[in-house]
Amino acid sequence: MNKNRRQFIKQVTTATLASAFSTQALADDTLDPFNLQEWRDNQINSPDKHHDILILGAGISGLCVAYELSKLGVNFQMLEARSKPGGRNETLRHGSEIEEFDRTSYCEFNRDKHLYFNVGPARISHHHERVLRYCKELSITLEPLINDNRNTFFSIDGAFNNTPIKAKELYTSQRGLIASTLAQAIEQNLVSHLLPAQHNDHMLKMLTSFGDLDSNYQFSGSIRAGAEANSGVFTPPQAQPSKDFTQVLPHLDKWARRIHFEQSKDQQAAMLQPVGGMDRIVKGFIRNIPKKIRYNSEVLSIKRVKSGSEVTFRNKQGVIKKMTAAQIVVTLPLTVLQDIDHDFSAPIAQEIQNANYTSAGKIAFQSERFWETHEHIYGGISWLGSDNTQLWYPSSGFGRESGVIVGGYIFDGPAGERFANLSNQERVDSALTQMQHVHPEAAEYTYNACSRSWKNTPFSKGGWSSNPPIVEFSHQDGPYIFAGDHTTYLSGWQEGAIASAHRALELLSLD
Amino acid sequence: MNKNRRQFIKQVTTATLASAFSTQALADDTLDPFNLQEWRDNQINSPDKHHDILILGAGISGLCVAYELSKLGVNFQMLEARSKPGGRNETLRHGSEIEEFDRTSYCEFNRDKHLYFNVGPARISHHHERVLRYCKELSITLEPLINDNRNTFFSIDGAFNNTPIKAKELYTSQRGLIASTLAQAIEQNLVSHLLPAQHNDHMLKMLTSFGDLDSNYQFSGSIRAGAEANSGVFTPPQAQPSKDFTQVLPHLDKWARRIHFEQSKDQQAAMLQPVGGMDRIVKGFIRNIPKKIRYNSEVLSIKRVKSGSEVTFRNKQGVIKKMTAAQIVVTLPLTVLQDIDHDFSAPIAQEIQNANYTSAGKIAFQSERFWETHEHIYGGISWLGSDNTQLWYPSSGFGRESGVIVGGYIFDGPAGERFANLSNQERVDSALTQMQHVHPEAAEYTYNACSRSWKNTPFSKGGWSSNPPIVEFSHQDGPYIFAGDHTTYLSGWQEGAIASAHRALELLSLD
Repeated sequence: MNKNRRQFIKQVTTATLASAFSTQALADDTLDPFNLQEWRDNQINSPDKHHDILILGAGISGLCVAYELSKLGVNFQMLEARSKPGGRNETLRHGSEIEEFDRTSYCEFNRDKHLYFNVGPARISHHHERVLRYCKELSITLEPLINDNRNTFFSIDGAFNNTPIKAKELYTSQRGLIASTLAQAIEQNLVSHLLPAQHNDHMLKMLTSFGDLDSNYQFSGSIRAGAEANSGVFTPPQAQPSKDFTQVLPHLDKWARRIHFEQSKDQQAAMLQPVGGMDRIVKGFIRNIPKKIRYNSEVLSIKRVKSGSEVTFRNKQGVIKKMTAAQIVVTLPLTVLQDIDHDFSAPIAQEIQNANYTSAGKIAFQSERFWETHEHIYGGISWLGSDNTQLWYPSSGFGRESGVIVGGYIFDGPAGERFANLSNQERVDSALTQMQHVHPEAAEYTYNACSRSWKNTPFSKGGWSSNPPIVEFSHQDGPYIFAGDHTTYLSGWQEGAIASAHRALELLSLD
Repeated sequence: MNKNRRQFIKQVTTATLASAFSTQALADDTLDPFNLQEWRDNQINSPDKHHDILILGAGISGLCVAYELSKLGVNFQMLEARSKPGGRNETLRHGSEIEEFDRTSYCEFNRDKHLYFNVGPARISHHHERVLRYCKELSITLEPLINDNRNTFFSIDGAFNNTPIKAKELYTSQRGLIASTLAQAIEQNLVSHLLPAQHNDHMLKMLTSFGDLDSNYQFSGSIRAGAEANSGVFTPPQAQPSKDFTQVLPHLDKWARRIHFEQSKDQQAAMLQPVGGMDRIVKGFIRNIPKKIRYNSEVLSIKRVKSGSEVTFRNKQGVIKKMTAAQIVVTLPLTVLQDIDHDFSAPIAQEIQNANYTSAGKIAFQSERFWETHEHIYGGISWLGSDNTQLWYPSSGFGRESGVIVGGYIFDGPAGERFANLSNQERVDSALTQMQHVHPEAAEYTYNACSRSWKNTPFSKGGWSSNPPIVEFSHQDGPYIFAGDHTTYLSGWQEGAIASAHRALELLSLD
């Protein structure tokens, strides 16, 4: 435990903490919460010494560590295998190079600022407070990202004659089925042992409103699911015929999570994104880090030596180099560490062996905005029954000539494997075929496709870890300190990467 | 029926219509749908003649009629009682004058572009296709308006010890109560007559996912309602203790509609707004209308004469003037028509007598963005139990120094009456007291308040009509053609105003 950690815990116990942290006992294992401002203040009062720190990987966690050390004027070195920073925080736009193991291509979108594709993380939750704090500190402008839009489609294979239905039809018919069944049970006095009697009338009133039931507690359609065309303006709104949600019931293993997606902890109907691309966060960090990052430096081995650890890497010219440091911050994905000769402790080594990453991938097209003009879809996601899973509509640039539509966000294992193995042209053809199930006109309007399979991407080899983190990631392992979203329960989220960076800062000895 | 209408219906019956209109039979009474492009095309082929048209009122419906006539080069005249166009489409910003019957004040927001207050309409639904069409045609940039945000508050008087709870706690506990009650009823075989037997297991699976139930089909809290502080990053997420939704049940008369607000037809979680203020739509129309609008012209009487109708009005200098026209488009609110001497047909006159308008009002403050820094609220609405009903957080300018928070959107009758009668200072004091129930720190950060009661506003005298429109608004009444949102089932929405304008265009004789 270093000085700052000790000071921090002392401050906790003397109850000087900001209110945000005051209600929780500290779990020693977790090193959470971390009070960044206090940490910064304490470090600024330390004497300026030579600090022998090496950061491996210039993704979000590595950049965050580097940024905080830079603010303090603390020395460090940094190795990055790619030719650019950011890791999976990658925004493709005109001219971006897209390298995978077996191919190199370029993004051919026009040059317009609004034509970009966040091929890695693409949304920020309001409770991802660490990311939001840096966005504010780095003057990164945020705008809403529409994540759930009831005017998009669900294409549930096996239901509704395989015809896509609107999200509002699905949600409304589900509420109608649930509410009408329970309301009838209450009215027939079947559940009086489950509900205090005084609630019966209230429950009936609530269910009628919740499910938009008729006076017999039946669900017979609702204008919440959409009004008939040409009704509701000069004549009263007429509900369209209701969908029968029981058609979805046999398909819940696949669809339950998708239907309740907007309810989940890290997803909300409206989220946030940086104006102009998620890599504004990368650029924000980079602007404030001295030019210490050695790009094109692929780590080959990491071994303990007397003075700490020695890292062997190959530079752009293919020359093998070595670097030693007393403390090494290891942010590389577990899949990448599998290929590196290391001497980490047994639990870490085992965890690297066990690594299980999603085969996430995305494909996007520049396109005329047919989803706006034809379907009145402004942002949000349509759900496919096929491999490509999600279509994302842009949340900005409404009404412009063109936009970028994500024609597939694949994150389920086998689908991701298949996507990885397709050629670029096969990915385009397959995506268009799948999009046409929801938007028959898609091929007419889309062009300039680009895609990435993270599984097939060097120095990532997968989307994010599906395993929960082991507790050993929370502790120093000799000269090694581990960071990266995979070392947290926020795997796949930038918030996890930054939280892990803060933990690494706490573990680093700067005495 | 004029020539265009006849042509239009002919085209309908010969099945040359765009697909959007192809599935609906035309109800002759409603004059809906209106194919704007066909109307425009037909008119362009008409000979250029002198057309004797007078439009009363330069709100959205009057401006839309004027815009379409201007595009065709058709002559018209226009009277507006205010000194500016737009009617209730009003955006307050630095220096805006706010006139009510008993007071005149000025908006004191700083000059920044993002500091504005849509004191009238403030959101556009994705299915308000007529408004969206004009936004596109007039190059009005749109951005998302976050209408429902699960991180805002519900302050339900009488429940939870009168302590505000987060929307996500409310929604999640409601789903939990409904799902757990029904799931137990299914498991106990109590509702087998209500559901086909083959669905039982599926329903249990669905309800477990829908309500986030435990393995005993109980709702015992959910991380959807928020995780415990400091859990979910280095330790698994822990659900906060769940709220008991039965506390809300006795209060549903007031709260059911509010809780299910985001489900309703014209509301969605994410909607749209023009960047920089709703009055961009007004400016868009005005840019394309010749300077024919006579402002400061208060209509006093409307009477039939041989050549059509004679309108008497008072100009800015107090001089009484007269103007005659063959056709008069009357867009004035029914409340305003009550004060005008007219000779409309009996049903219209009766409807004007019966006019019943909401007493809507709003108050806003410039403020430091404490809701973002303290509560991580980015856009959306909090619901108060007191008069001021809704707090709106801005959906743009995230992270900036200041923003505009709507400290009250009042639309319930008695509350609106009370708001109308308060002095400006009383409105501010009352709003702060009410905001402090949800945000105790509100008074510390807010300043530069401005407010408007539409009830107390000359030439509006209310928010919008609460009565359904009578069918007579769909027909010509001698020289009179009626328009305005109050003549449609979309009362209070700009979409209704524009639909009514299109109907007026159809009824106008341009032969």
